[in-house]
Amino acid sequence: MRRPLTKDEQDWVEHTLQSMSVREKIGQTMQDHAGRLPFKATDENEVRAYLEKYPVGSFFIGGEVIQKAAGKAGEYREWVELLQRVSKFPLLFSGDLEFGAGSAVKSLTAFPPLLALAAADDEALAYEYGKYTAVEGRAAGFTWALAPGTDLLLNWMNPVITTRCLGDEPGRAQRLSAAVVRGMQDYGIAACAKHFPGDGVDYRDQHIITTINSLPEQEWWSTYGKVSQHLIDQGLMSYMTGHIALPWMEGAAAQGQKPVPATVSRRITTDLLRGRMGFEGVVLSDALDMGGFLAWGDYEQRMVDCLNSGTDVLLWPGVRYFETMEKALAQGMVTMERLDASVRRILAMKAELSLQHLDAQGRDPLAVPLVDDTLKPEQDLQARELSRQLAEKCITLVRNRADILPLDPQTTRRVLVIMLNKVTQGRVFERMGLFVDQLQARGLQVDILDEFEPLNTLQKWEQSGIRWDAAFVPYFMPLHGMMNSARPVGEAAKAIWALQHAETIRPIGVSFATPFLLRDMPFLDTLVNAYSLHEETVEFTVKALFGEAPFLGHSPVDADPEEDYLSPRRVQHVPH
Amino acid sequence: MRRPLTKDEQDWVEHTLQSMSVREKIGQTMQDHAGRLPFKATDENEVRAYLEKYPVGSFFIGGEVIQKAAGKAGEYREWVELLQRVSKFPLLFSGDLEFGAGSAVKSLTAFPPLLALAAADDEALAYEYGKYTAVEGRAAGFTWALAPGTDLLLNWMNPVITTRCLGDEPGRAQRLSAAVVRGMQDYGIAACAKHFPGDGVDYRDQHIITTINSLPEQEWWSTYGKVSQHLIDQGLMSYMTGHIALPWMEGAAAQGQKPVPATVSRRITTDLLRGRMGFEGVVLSDALDMGGFLAWGDYEQRMVDCLNSGTDVLLWPGVRYFETMEKALAQGMVTMERLDASVRRILAMKAELSLQHLDAQGRDPLAVPLVDDTLKPEQDLQARELSRQLAEKCITLVRNRADILPLDPQTTRRVLVIMLNKVTQGRVFERMGLFVDQLQARGLQVDILDEFEPLNTLQKWEQSGIRWDAAFVPYFMPLHGMMNSARPVGEAAKAIWALQHAETIRPIGVSFATPFLLRDMPFLDTLVNAYSLHEETVEFTVKALFGEAPFLGHSPVDADPEEDYLSPRRVQHVPH
Repeated sequence: MRRPLTKDEQDWVEHTLQSMSVREKIGQTMQDHAGRLPFKATDENEVRAYLEKYPVGSFFIGGEVIQKAAGKAGEYREWVELLQRVSKFPLLFSGDLEFGAGSAVKSLTAFPPLLALAAADDEALAYEYGKYTAVEGRAAGFTWALAPGTDLLLNWMNPVITTRCLGDEPGRAQRLSAAVVRGMQDYGIAACAKHFPGDGVDYRDQHIITTINSLPEQEWWSTYGKVSQHLIDQGLMSYMTGHIALPWMEGAAAQGQKPVPATVSRRITTDLLRGRMGFEGVVLSDALDMGGFLAWGDYEQRMVDCLNSGTDVLLWPGVRYFETMEKALAQGMVTMERLDASVRRILAMKAELSLQHLDAQGRDPLAVPLVDDTLKPEQDLQARELSRQLAEKCITLVRNRADILPLDPQTTRRVLVIMLNKVTQGRVFERMGLFVDQLQARGLQVDILDEFEPLNTLQKWEQSGIRWDAAFVPYFMPLHGMMNSARPVGEAAKAIWALQHAETIRPIGVSFATPFLLRDMPFLDTLVNAYSLHEETVEFTVKALFGEAPFLGHSPVDADPEEDYLSPRRVQHVPH
Repeated sequence: MRRPLTKDEQDWVEHTLQSMSVREKIGQTMQDHAGRLPFKATDENEVRAYLEKYPVGSFFIGGEVIQKAAGKAGEYREWVELLQRVSKFPLLFSGDLEFGAGSAVKSLTAFPPLLALAAADDEALAYEYGKYTAVEGRAAGFTWALAPGTDLLLNWMNPVITTRCLGDEPGRAQRLSAAVVRGMQDYGIAACAKHFPGDGVDYRDQHIITTINSLPEQEWWSTYGKVSQHLIDQGLMSYMTGHIALPWMEGAAAQGQKPVPATVSRRITTDLLRGRMGFEGVVLSDALDMGGFLAWGDYEQRMVDCLNSGTDVLLWPGVRYFETMEKALAQGMVTMERLDASVRRILAMKAELSLQHLDAQGRDPLAVPLVDDTLKPEQDLQARELSRQLAEKCITLVRNRADILPLDPQTTRRVLVIMLNKVTQGRVFERMGLFVDQLQARGLQVDILDEFEPLNTLQKWEQSGIRWDAAFVPYFMPLHGMMNSARPVGEAAKAIWALQHAETIRPIGVSFATPFLLRDMPFLDTLVNAYSLHEETVEFTVKALFGEAPFLGHSPVDADPEEDYLSPRRVQHVPH
């Protein structure tokens, strides 16, 4: 999936590098955030003035995965063309395209998340997942997908990767992530696997503090190392380092010493990733405004250490970065050789993506045309069909002890929905309503409980004579909806208490988020994991609940570990 | 601390038992909730009619520990006298007097919580803690303290016992809980240790689901068993069973089988607690509206199983209990022998508390007089002084790596307070303001950060030139303030992220709640544990921060376990 550069391309790289001022080289090693520009981003004169002063090498654009996608593909493409036209050197545009280009751009296709792909466990689908992310992404101006996730969900309490990874099994994660990367890179977008050396071991969130991948050396090689090595050997174009320490490589943080996150660790980034593993692509740091990086030191120290560790591109350091690096170079804290090595790698990636062939209007000959902010109808249909297929294949029946499922549509007339989370308020994740809509579309009478004070409302309803033919307990938690926890806590925990006041129901858990609901609700006889509130996934979930479609998914994590319930002190998952 | 009944008392017990109707016997085995009466509780005629229909044996009164104390001691005492006057048999009045009578009655003395007592680790103080709980409690009408906690904080994630126990070390917990019990029972109040077979191993909350004490048999005996056996041998009058399963005793919950909580387990309550451990006092169940009990079965099954397991008094079953038990007796599901055995134990406890000697007005000759809703000035002063002493002795300097503490009052002029929780909103726990008040009283300029969007407010303040001589990060979480978690999650987690945007401060953690803040904030160089927002504790905390008083407490849990930070998959605490 990766080809050697042609002689012309190599020449372009070297010629471009030689033509650059120091400040222009510095600019190549930072990634700016399009959403944080201090002026109206569509004003060509403002853009020109900004890029002349701050000749950055790449921009992050689009909705972040932790928020909702926004905008139309055509607008993104126009803006990218404007910047390419104005910029002296071709720019890279990245986005968190973790579940399709639709994760950043509303008018494009949002697939079910990676954990759903792992539940479907279909390598051909995974390749298409990458391919359509790339085709749609490049059409909208993206050339760099900050995806796919190569983390492993080894600790069920991990609060941040949850559905953004390919499960807990290295073999499956390796197979599927490699297919996604191939799909992306075959269709003109650089994949950026994340996060090296691997998230998912800690119970904490690297947004908040530096987290630890505490696996010992041998276990790391047979898990994270195995997945990473495979991708590297296949020609992965870039890797994102996380604010994650790796004690077997960096040594233990002794008393009073800070753990060393990969983003500032020469041993992890240069010795391990480049040296021992042979990675020759671009190393992009994770975002530098995350708590896991901030704690490392003051601004200048952090930037210098990050670049010197072997990072090629720093994500969102802000434009202070220019003077910080100029000073660091002048004082010998950073060498020109170190800077040149990174710029050369970045330019090589640009050449491989053919960005030197943009036309004078900044237009990209490799981007397919857009029609009304989507791909041409035929291609668009293929992308949407892929999304539907994945939705159909991911729904997982984790537990069905009393054979409650599938429900009999003939006898199921009145149902109860106990909302573990009210996601229609606060953050704008309205799709929990889709679940109810699907029930009502079947002519069912739906009672909803979403207030848990007093706790005995259900008991009162029962005492008034109401009976339900089925009771659903849907759970959804938007990413960072409850920072530092993926578990049902707060109101969701109170909901668990409240629902047990009922005596006549056998609640059916339906998780649209963490696959580990049984760790806090072990009493459920029935659990379906659907991984997201993706529209078609919700539709297939309800179909499967009523026997209109089979449950085709296989749990990509140990979602029903009997022994853990009896050993609650041992709360983590042991990797395979 | 416990005496055998006199012949007269024994005669009263037997005579009273023989005189009772079946319904009256049933009433002895349930505890009603004074706050849930379906009429105006101070209307003598209403009370009489109610007790004639529902001749309950005991009432729970007062604020619950999870809420704020309310009311005046004189009002409680008057109401108790009214009920005693009206009731055919003397009543027991219980309250969650976990940290003094002030935990239920606002006008009485609220001590720092048990974990503070463990940090002070002073057996004489512990005895006084029990004594003044009893003297004040009985003066307000209480004869049964649902305290002290004998749980062990073995799992740092346990969301519910946190500061309501005596730490993690069985020897300390045994020594101090025994002293508290002696103090209570020597001064006329029945202690009710809680919870058997022991909370603190699970990461979940028995309010929400049945939790598991998963220690193997031998380890259980050397921890929870050791503490419990010591109290039993010393003459503990009552024990509260929890909705907690004990797999080594009840067997593992096989697939599809529910774990058996102690509250319905004959093996745990009768075979283990009564049989092997020789407990002859009253067994009170934990509240029956908790999720950990509700899941067991339908209402009737739960009640029958609870009584048959060996429970003497069921906490808050509601008055449906009367007909449920009448039916169960009629159908042979419960035997009269079983019922009589419990009634006899309850009456014996009443006799031991001299409740048969109330006068015709319902007045209690053993209750000391109240003056303006407190004890007489001299006694009141002693209770308040005890509270002050404990506050002085509990403040614990957990970590002081850079010798930041004590602060120099000469050079500390402007300080920053980063509120991990805004506890002045929502639930009415205003005391976080006390901490700020104490700082301001020293003439300090105090800047407060309690909004974390945008995340970089601190950075902006710093860039505007502001500098602080010290930065405090206080943490408080009211019990159940975040159900199912004691960790900083949600807004508190975002605050941790936000505070790291600062480059010029070295934050000083001050926990007024969980002692385990370092598990989520390992980067803190400095941590003080103060265990509660008790007024004098807050005062002594600030004194100690500024070197006006020494740090006298010793951490009763492993609050700074270096190795855990590097092994985040192993998130639980290993018991000593």
